[in-house]
Amino acid sequence: MNLDHQITVKSMKPKIISLDQIKTVISKIDLINPIKEGFIAYSSGRAVVPPVGELLLDQGEVHIKYGYIKHSPCYVVKVASGFYNNPALGLASSNGLILLFSQTTGELIAILLDEGFLTDTRTAVAGAIAAEYLAPKKIKKIGIIGTGTQAKLQLLYLKEQTVCREVLVWGLNEKNLHAYRDEMEQYGFQIEVTSDIRGCLRHCNLIVTTTPAISPLFYLSDVQPGTHITAVGSDTPDKQEFDSNILKAADLVVADSMAQCRVRGEIHHAIKAKHVTEYEVTELGHIISGKRAGRTSEEQLTVIDLTGVAVQDIKVSEAVYNYLTTSKFY
Amino acid sequence: MNLDHQITVKSMKPKIISLDQIKTVISKIDLINPIKEGFIAYSSGRAVVPPVGELLLDQGEVHIKYGYIKHSPCYVVKVASGFYNNPALGLASSNGLILLFSQTTGELIAILLDEGFLTDTRTAVAGAIAAEYLAPKKIKKIGIIGTGTQAKLQLLYLKEQTVCREVLVWGLNEKNLHAYRDEMEQYGFQIEVTSDIRGCLRHCNLIVTTTPAISPLFYLSDVQPGTHITAVGSDTPDKQEFDSNILKAADLVVADSMAQCRVRGEIHHAIKAKHVTEYEVTELGHIISGKRAGRTSEEQLTVIDLTGVAVQDIKVSEAVYNYLTTSKFY
Repeated sequence: MNLDHQITVKSMKPKIISLDQIKTVISKIDLINPIKEGFIAYSSGRAVVPPVGELLLDQGEVHIKYGYIKHSPCYVVKVASGFYNNPALGLASSNGLILLFSQTTGELIAILLDEGFLTDTRTAVAGAIAAEYLAPKKIKKIGIIGTGTQAKLQLLYLKEQTVCREVLVWGLNEKNLHAYRDEMEQYGFQIEVTSDIRGCLRHCNLIVTTTPAISPLFYLSDVQPGTHITAVGSDTPDKQEFDSNILKAADLVVADSMAQCRVRGEIHHAIKAKHVTEYEVTELGHIISGKRAGRTSEEQLTVIDLTGVAVQDIKVSEAVYNYLTTSKFY
Repeated sequence: MNLDHQITVKSMKPKIISLDQIKTVISKIDLINPIKEGFIAYSSGRAVVPPVGELLLDQGEVHIKYGYIKHSPCYVVKVASGFYNNPALGLASSNGLILLFSQTTGELIAILLDEGFLTDTRTAVAGAIAAEYLAPKKIKKIGIIGTGTQAKLQLLYLKEQTVCREVLVWGLNEKNLHAYRDEMEQYGFQIEVTSDIRGCLRHCNLIVTTTPAISPLFYLSDVQPGTHITAVGSDTPDKQEFDSNILKAADLVVADSMAQCRVRGEIHHAIKAKHVTEYEVTELGHIISGKRAGRTSEEQLTVIDLTGVAVQDIKVSEAVYNYLTTSKFY
């Protein structure tokens, strides 16, 4: 039986882009501006981002994010997973890929085999964008809470946003703290390590929290006036890195996506505790577009909650694809 | 800035399987038994198949189906699209791909760039399985309603299920009818064409309906006793190929998935018209497993409604992957 029955079509071959190719070029690509455009599109209602699909397996969990920005070239499907036992097997716990399709014909344009790398990257880029609009002008010292991948990437992407190179990194595992210091000093930062989180908050006025904590690591009394906090770690209903009285006291509370921050992350805890109402929260896209103000004085306390929005995936993958197809690298 | 910061992992490289590779081997692969197993797993509650994700774009629509069978090697994500203007551009309207991931580590095992081919194939295989359990022993003539891809594939896969080679195909477009005849006679069938649907139903006792009709093409009075009808065309809440009085009169009404047939397809129309209750409908998986009876006499009128279940995608893609990795073709 010969089943070669389909109409012969002149469809395009998808470009397959490896993690190595992505890593080779990522630092040469402007991700800040595309991702800013993504947040603006999102907050102005031009993005279609349905609820995240989920599979809960015995050994891990899978999230399927998909969506598009109206009247733009691509729609995107991202599969991202976390598998608990992978480190014991010598494998990274996170995994996944991003698919780029044509909005006009549905054809598969590109497969980015990024294994979660672009998710990590676009999260760090959002942190840098947040700092541009929300951090005080004069950053005394950068405080990094945590020592993992985001703790490193957030700092790397902050390098373009500030001249400050003094960093105080908090963690509980001495080995991880020293590994962090050794790695990040190579990028020109002066890294001090500490296991005293209150000391960290006393000396730093730009704080990035990157832990998977499920109960507060610090409180309002620990925070200095004029501080900006970028909350990266909490992206589920359970996780919480700091007391929600901090959001109550803040002059400005910002969400990457109000729809998501309503049900997960730091803002969700503050709403539940009645410390903040939704109407007091500003979406990042409105600040970038100039519709709403960011920080307006050096004395303000500001907080942004980054839960990760599919427009970031769309924009980062388009940017990588565009770079690779217009450069000699491909 | 060097972002080569991730832990180096010894992750597997996904196998990328092209449509050409799939077409070359598909006829050599046993799909009947794996897909039977898939239906049994589904009906016995061993499959996890969340609701279908959907994107509605200006030029087309996209469905994202995903799921897994518990304690089996893979989980699967399928993206399938239909774009209305593609034929005018010389492109197939349907498109898509299937991703096969490890249930143990989340690693991407294979990318099947099937462009919708495996969806067409697994749908036809389900039709053949339905005929095995539901068609009368003596098939006088096969009646095919429609002349498209499914009209052809359903007939091809019936070849292994019956010795009958006499076929009456119904359509309204003479050119399409003759093209169907010319193509399918090459596979050893004797094809008559007709634009008289009642004549078709009078002469045939195995009917396969494959059109996108949104109102009934035939009625109970047109159907002969002892007929089996496989309904393939209606897979949305709107589409309907035949009057639901036929389901009311049927001795056995079968669904591929009760959860899906509750909201789309022929059974959904019959339930809405109060011609059938859910409790009168049998799931295909229970018939295959022997838990419920299929056809028990030559005089019965039987109907199966095939809406397409993700377990079929899981099983067909696993079967193709297994064949290609254990044969010398890969």
